Amino acid sequence: MRQRSWWGWGWADAALDDAACEELAATRVRPYLPLDGALAPIPAVPRLRPPRVGPPPGIPVATDDTTRAGHAYGKAYRDVVRALHGTVDHPPDLVAFPATEADVGNALEWAAGNGVAVVPYGGGSSVVGGVEYRGDAPWLSLDLSHLAAVPEVDELNLAVRAQAGVYGPALEERLKPYGLTLRHYPQSFEFSTVGGWLATRAGGHFATGHTHIDDLVEALRVVTFAGVSQSLRVPASGAGPSPDRLFLGSEGALGIITEAWLRVRRRPSFTAAATMSFDGYARSVSATRAVAQSGLLPSNCRLLDPLEAAIQAGVRDGGARLLLGFESADAPVDAALARAVELCRDHGGVPVDRPASWRDTFLRAPYLRDALVRLGLVVETVETACTWDRFEELHAAVLAAASGAIVSCRFTHVYPDGPAPYFTVLATGGPSTWDELKAALGEAIVHSGGTITHHHAVGRDHRPWYDRERPEPFAAALRAAKAVLDPHGVLNPGVLVD
Amino acid sequence: MRQRSWWGWGWADAALDDAACEELAATRVRPYLPLDGALAPIPAVPRLRPPRVGPPPGIPVATDDTTRAGHAYGKAYRDVVRALHGTVDHPPDLVAFPATEADVGNALEWAAGNGVAVVPYGGGSSVVGGVEYRGDAPWLSLDLSHLAAVPEVDELNLAVRAQAGVYGPALEERLKPYGLTLRHYPQSFEFSTVGGWLATRAGGHFATGHTHIDDLVEALRVVTFAGVSQSLRVPASGAGPSPDRLFLGSEGALGIITEAWLRVRRRPSFTAAATMSFDGYARSVSATRAVAQSGLLPSNCRLLDPLEAAIQAGVRDGGARLLLGFESADAPVDAALARAVELCRDHGGVPVDRPASWRDTFLRAPYLRDALVRLGLVVETVETACTWDRFEELHAAVLAAASGAIVSCRFTHVYPDGPAPYFTVLATGGPSTWDELKAALGEAIVHSGGTITHHHAVGRDHRPWYDRERPEPFAAALRAAKAVLDPHGVLNPGVLVD
Repeated sequence: MRQRSWWGWGWADAALDDAACEELAATRVRPYLPLDGALAPIPAVPRLRPPRVGPPPGIPVATDDTTRAGHAYGKAYRDVVRALHGTVDHPPDLVAFPATEADVGNALEWAAGNGVAVVPYGGGSSVVGGVEYRGDAPWLSLDLSHLAAVPEVDELNLAVRAQAGVYGPALEERLKPYGLTLRHYPQSFEFSTVGGWLATRAGGHFATGHTHIDDLVEALRVVTFAGVSQSLRVPASGAGPSPDRLFLGSEGALGIITEAWLRVRRRPSFTAAATMSFDGYARSVSATRAVAQSGLLPSNCRLLDPLEAAIQAGVRDGGARLLLGFESADAPVDAALARAVELCRDHGGVPVDRPASWRDTFLRAPYLRDALVRLGLVVETVETACTWDRFEELHAAVLAAASGAIVSCRFTHVYPDGPAPYFTVLATGGPSTWDELKAALGEAIVHSGGTITHHHAVGRDHRPWYDRERPEPFAAALRAAKAVLDPHGVLNPGVLVD
Repeated sequence: MRQRSWWGWGWADAALDDAACEELAATRVRPYLPLDGALAPIPAVPRLRPPRVGPPPGIPVATDDTTRAGHAYGKAYRDVVRALHGTVDHPPDLVAFPATEADVGNALEWAAGNGVAVVPYGGGSSVVGGVEYRGDAPWLSLDLSHLAAVPEVDELNLAVRAQAGVYGPALEERLKPYGLTLRHYPQSFEFSTVGGWLATRAGGHFATGHTHIDDLVEALRVVTFAGVSQSLRVPASGAGPSPDRLFLGSEGALGIITEAWLRVRRRPSFTAAATMSFDGYARSVSATRAVAQSGLLPSNCRLLDPLEAAIQAGVRDGGARLLLGFESADAPVDAALARAVELCRDHGGVPVDRPASWRDTFLRAPYLRDALVRLGLVVETVETACTWDRFEELHAAVLAAASGAIVSCRFTHVYPDGPAPYFTVLATGGPSTWDELKAALGEAIVHSGGTITHHHAVGRDHRPWYDRERPEPFAAALRAAKAVLDPHGVLNPGVLVD
């Protein structure tokens, strides 16, 4: 069976080998940054402190070092660099693999009775400290990957019922024979789950329209200490505040999402794509705004700034690139693409060949990130969303806050009222360098009117800014909700609310 | 100044006169129902019980009978028939017209200190008992219509900042010089407000896509007892559960919405419309599903069942009608319409002339309703949403529950996973007839898998079914949230939670 990497991204065998790391250094790093340290070796699993609590009765549990080390962290730079250096000081005492919803409930009851913190774990791809408990109590990593059934595919209503632990590829495999797809492809697609997407309000495939998993939710099932919450499966309702919207983004702090009805669609049979080149970044931003405000709803509308185009897509002419894509299961989309291209031309855009293998690069990026970390670099991303009028200032503020680092920017999603800029940061240094950078970048984003996260969630790493962004009356309501749904305070303590 | 009707819909001078009522009876009622009572006269304002509390200091307040009677009820059949017969037993003791957000806060503090219930009032068009306090305490109707500024129109980001008391037409007037529109047209458009739309999750213009006002919200400002909640104005965020989504649909029970940033769009310059006729209702439903699942996103996709087509749109051939419309500010929509028509043809649809003046009929319907009430009829609507697989059963159950009444159905909105059916009920009888019908209809809807409301809100009239539909853990969270945001329990007591 193929092994997951315990320290880095994805499959252990897909990590770049030493030669590939050196090539990466030569071609993608040294043109921009000095690089003189030795390549860190792929680490062995360290010896962990023994579990401080016995296992909950009747629930499958692992206590071996490899499983516990693999559940100690998410996959942020902070996580990878610590694992790489064998630093796993606060691993989960236990990793449980509930096989049924009853197991989940029993695990929670046991945890409450034994003062154990419970951290739900889907694919473990959090980049915000969402799966790493940082308190002093014993803790249980609740790995939902055995809750992986897809009991119903509903072709008539275009919906699927999936358990929380279903990984992206497994869900798509299940839908494929029906000609259906969820069409939700976060960068973590291969290594993240339905439950994780829902708990973190993951951003997906569509650059416009249904950008977040939120919009694809028909009904949710959540285990809480006040009982199992099952919302009504209807296409829409105006009956009071949406129950689902309270649990979407609740990051395991209010309950454990165990199942959802999700809206799927027929697989696209019509596609059209173009790549536009722009000399000036400002004009490319204006063109992207025009497309975002046109109502054309491209499925892809990804603006790469000149540096991002150069580093990530091998563009050599110093221009910005806007990747446009349209798709439909029903009718040709060429006219929509032609109109979007026309809008871009109005802003100086010129169609060019598509950068090679963008999608592969996208899914492969986290493996490259791990290699860069082994090379001794700081490499991480920060992302946000802001209104169009604030973007120029925000972009400048982020670059200024990261002076000394290499910062490139792409738009992952765009809206009529603003873009979702996604910055990749590359720097020499170590964990403390990143801690300082992250603090400065968070301040730059928030001061410029951006949200602290468009789709990476809050976790523990974004708490300082989230606490300021969130309206205080809402925080009070959330704390009150948590007090009734998690009266013992054992559900993912440290995320969202205290 | 033009006067609002204190007892019925809209403008007093727009009510049907006696001759028009008689013509309505002859042409639209007697073909379907016996009708033999006398026409009830337009009522005078009754003499009301005196206010039981003095006014809050420093806030504009009205205590006259006309104003208080006009704020005693919403505009449901139950409301109109009571007013028509002079029954206004529990009017608000006071009607306050806060001119500033500070006035709102002061009114709440005063109410809490004096044991007075506060019912926010926008345009008063609730059809679910949302603006009528039914408890024993003195009560204040908090009319927000003087908070009617539109301080900012943001052309760059396509957004508008509007205070809660702005009526639909005033908002559109303000946007018109910029070539912008909110494009939110509930049937109550002329007599409802931004704040009312937000507090009730109103359904609007678009039959697909952005069906509810929820989707048009960029940021909200809400006065609560835990302070003023102001959410961050960004195009999207994944930072925890959405604060706005807790207040959307909160119906005044958690706080008073005072202001919002809403997403607007350029006025459509391209439109295309067609009306399709179908012999059989089942095939017309299948055709509508095909269009809803096509991704074409028509702005109008309104299916009238044969009876609705006959009564409401004068169709004489006994067929169902599907009204299709597309619009864009950017590009022609003829190809989209042609494709939708083609989908309908696959299900036996045939293009026909458009029913005359559908839109006028739509906006004028509440005046006709008042006339029918004066004629001694029960006339009311119930609406829901369900998945496609449940619709046939739901439709049959509603008709069976209303045996003896005339029930027609249209789809106001459609989704890939189901329609939002809207039933109009016409019967002989009086208020107790309707009470029995409403109870039976609510049961029929809920037993058939529908939500108790797609866009009319919960208010007081839907509480029995809402309490069953809502997951209990969410109810517990909502009660906890209310306890911190409204610790004195004075905010619209009786709606949503107790």
